[in-house]
Parts: sequence; C-alpha cells; structure tokens
Amino acid sequence: LALQCGILFMLLVLNHHTGAQTPEQNLAKLGITLPKASQPVANYVNCVRVGNLLFLAGKGPVTPNGTYITGKLGKDLDTARGYEAARLVAIGHIAVLKAELGDLRKVKRIVKVLGLVNCTDQFTAQPKVINGYSDLMVAVFGEKGKHARSAVGTNALPMNIAVEAEVIVEVEE
Amino acid sequence: LALQCGILFMLLVLNHHTGAQTPEQNLAKLGITLPKASQPVANYVNCVRVGNLLFLAGKGPVTPNGTYITGKLGKDLDTARGYEAARLVAIGHIAVLKAELGDLRKVKRIVKVLGLVNCTDQFTAQPKVINGYSDLMVAVFGEKGKHARSAVGTNALPMNIAVEAEVIVEVEE
Amino acid sequence: LALQCGILFMLLVLNHHTGAQTPEQNLAKLGITLPKASQPVANYVNCVRVGNLLFLAGKGPVTPNGTYITGKLGKDLDTARGYEAARLVAIGHIAVLKAELGDLRKVKRIVKVLGLVNCTDQFTAQPKVINGYSDLMVAVFGEKGKHARSAVGTNALPMNIAVEAEVIVEVEE
Repeated sequence: LALQCGILFMLLVLNHHTGAQTPEQNLAKLGITLPKASQPVANYVNCVRVGNLLFLAGKGPVTPNGTYITGKLGKDLDTARGYEAARLVAIGHIAVLKAELGDLRKVKRIVKVLGLVNCTDQFTAQPKVINGYSDLMVAVFGEKGKHARSAVGTNALPMNIAVEAEVIVEVEE
Repeated sequence: LALQCGILFMLLVLNHHTGAQTPEQNLAKLGITLPKASQPVANYVNCVRVGNLLFLAGKGPVTPNGTYITGKLGKDLDTARGYEAARLVAIGHIAVLKAELGDLRKVKRIVKVLGLVNCTDQFTAQPKVINGYSDLMVAVFGEKGKHARSAVGTNALPMNIAVEAEVIVEVEE
Repeated sequence: LALQCGILFMLLVLNHHTGAQTPEQNLAKLGITLPKASQPVANYVNCVRVGNLLFLAGKGPVTPNGTYITGKLGKDLDTARGYEAARLVAIGHIAVLKAELGDLRKVKRIVKVLGLVNCTDQFTAQPKVINGYSDLMVAVFGEKGKHARSAVGTNALPMNIAVEAEVIVEVEE
C-alpha cells in the first residue's frame, strides 16, 4: 500500500509539474458537470466519424435544468448572456465527444467551428458571443482547443435558440 | 436457362431476405427519377473529392419540371412545402453523387449536412423543414444515410429559393 | 555564365509555353500585393491543418488601407461592390495560405467555400457577389482553384462587414 501511495503521489506531482491536466480534470476545476448528450429525434445523428475526423451536429444552448436559452441578440439578450449561451453549446459538444470517445484525452484538436448567432439585423458583436464557445474549448483542451472558426449572424434558429454551433474535431487513431 | 433462372431467383430471394436494396432500387421504389445534375455557371464545381471525402456544392430545390421552389417559410410557404423543398435538394445532391460515382453503392456514409431555410425572423421549425432532406437520405441509403446535421434559418437565399443545403459524403476507396 | 543564362532562358520559355505560372506570379500579374495575414484576437486561429486539409477561419473584406468594406447588399452596397468585397476576402485567405505554406504551389485544390453575404431580406444575387471570391481563386490557382461552394445570405455579420467566407484547402504532402 505504501508503495502504491508513493507511486500515486509521484504521478500526481508529475502531473502537476507538467501541467498536463486532463480535459476531465479541467471540466471539474471549472465546476462543469457534463450533461447526458441529447439524442436527435429525427433521421440524423450527433456525430459521424470519418478516419480521424469527427463531424458533430449543430447544437443549441441547453442549461443545466434542461431548458434552452432562447431569444435574439440585440433585442432579447445582451452579449454577456449570448456568451453564456455559446459556452453552453460548447459544453453540449463536449458531452457528445465524451459519449463518443469515452476519454476526452483522445481529442487531438478542435479543428473548425461554425457559430451562428440568432440576432437582429443591426447586431454586429457575433465574435464576442461565440468567444463563449471558443474560450471554453481552450479552457478544457488547452492548445488543442484552438480552432479555426467563423462567427456569423442569422435571423432565425430552431425553437428561437440564441446560438447554434457545429464543429469538426480531430481525434487520436 | 433453367439453371440461370434458378440462380437469379436465389439471388432475388437473398437480396430480399437481407434487405440489401441498392440506393438505385430504393429511388425506383420511391418513384424518383434522378434529374441531370445541374452544372454551375460560375467558377465553381458541383463536387470536389479529397481522399475518400466528397464535398458537394450548395443546391436548391429543383422541381421535376426544372423550376425552383421559391419563397420564405413563415410567410410564403408552410412547413409541409418546405419539407418537400428540402427533399428536392436531397434528390439534387443524389444526382450529383450519381454523376460523380456512377454507382450509388459507392456511398459509404452521408457525413454532414448544413441545411439553410429561407425564412422570416419568427420562423422556428427549421428542423422540420430539413427533415425532408434527412428522411430522403435515409430512405435511399439506409443507415449509411444517417448524418450529422445543422438546420438553421437565413433571411435570404439565391433567387429566393426556399431551402439550400450542402453536404460532405464519404465514399468507398 | 552564358550556359546559365541559356538554361534560365530555356526555363523561362518552357514556363511560358506550358503556361505554368505560379500562384505568386499570377498575383503579381493581377497587381495584387498580399497583405500580412491578420491575427485573430480571440481564442481561435487562422488555420488548422489535419492531414493534407487546411481549415481556414472565416475572414472579412479588408481593403489595402486596412479598413473593412461594410454594409448590407440590397441597401448600402450594389452587387459590383459586393463582388469587390468577396474578392478581398479571397485575397485575405490567400494571405493566410501564404503564411501557412510559404509557397502557394503547395496548394493542391481549393476544396469548399461557404460564402455569406450580409444583405436585406429581398436580396437574391448572393452568387454574383461570391463570384468575386471564386473568380479570384481561379485567376490565381487555375483549375486547382475551382471549388465546391455555397453562396447564401445572412441578416448580420461581425462589424457589419459586407461578406464573410470560410474555406477548406487541400495541400501537397
């Protein structure tokens, strides 16, 4: 037992020194409990893998109590609330990745994000909203979380959700 | 001849028992005749292949008589008509796949769909519209037709078409 | 020296006869000086490579003096100005490719473009606008510049820019 504890302690120290937190540890530090990945009700799926690429379906901002954040930026919601919505979309995508991969260390790179902001014609701060998505991905995956992205507006989203995003992810073989 | 007929019969029975209809047979059962894939008039193409991935250009809803379904959901068209439009977009994409591959059995997976619905700011049933696309892909390709997707709104599409979609498809080597 | 000049002359003639201009030469002929690729200020990057695919972030139309072309098609800008904006977006993407690859001959294929036009609900000439992007890619990369594309509208873009596009590019190993 003493030996086992010693080895465990060494591993912990090593882990701390290299800063090599796992994505799951980062989520815990952020106080985030992943929701169960919601299943599409129609003829499509959350995720399709081709080689080492995962293509994830568009997701909306689901709060911990299971409701969506709805409304249009520039009218119903301010940018801070939009940021929060985008962050929830990222959490939903990570839940899909966790269900698909089991271990989030298998994420090699968040590759490409298309973020759509439900907004008025005059709203121009789409990037500040989608930062909620990007910032969380980097907080959880570190450098591997840095992606190419587009942050754009749209006049309407399903169920009037505030934000929707889709993502392509590279995974380990 | 008797032997040939016998073998043919056995193959038909086998085919029926395994349910291994080809996509072409599924199209025939649905009464769908593929149109000739429309050629882009500008400096772009219908389809680019990289390895075993095909990236298809965005297509609109072309009716059998060659005209487009136009108008905005939530104002000019109801959801049922939008569904029909999305179904026609899928048929147009299958026509591109047929022209590219010759044999639709080479489709390994419909990977990722981005469906855009031309709609009013208040319209929120984009998924029900894009189901017209998804349902047809599954009717034609079975499990291979199940894709990751995003279904979103837009305030304006080319020529005021009701729906546009783009798709990524995995093909056999 | 005479021999070296002779060989150089032969290479120039050969180059001229085969029409094998490099993308850099084509840019020079078009009078285009590539800007320095603008760096994202948020938690994302200009470009992510997976295997032989580059996924480029969405870019807007930056003029040579560093300002954006802003406004909505169908209200603030005409189609010719939109075409010019889309052309500038393509130049911005080529600047990212140059920074990433060093030599633009490493571009094997412009694969897939999503072009978004900031426009009124009534505007329907999105393809004519995005032709500004497509035409430049073909002018610079020739047949390798021909891509699959979607050209769609949106009610709002960041900082009210007129056009945004994202692109997937295949590169040599």
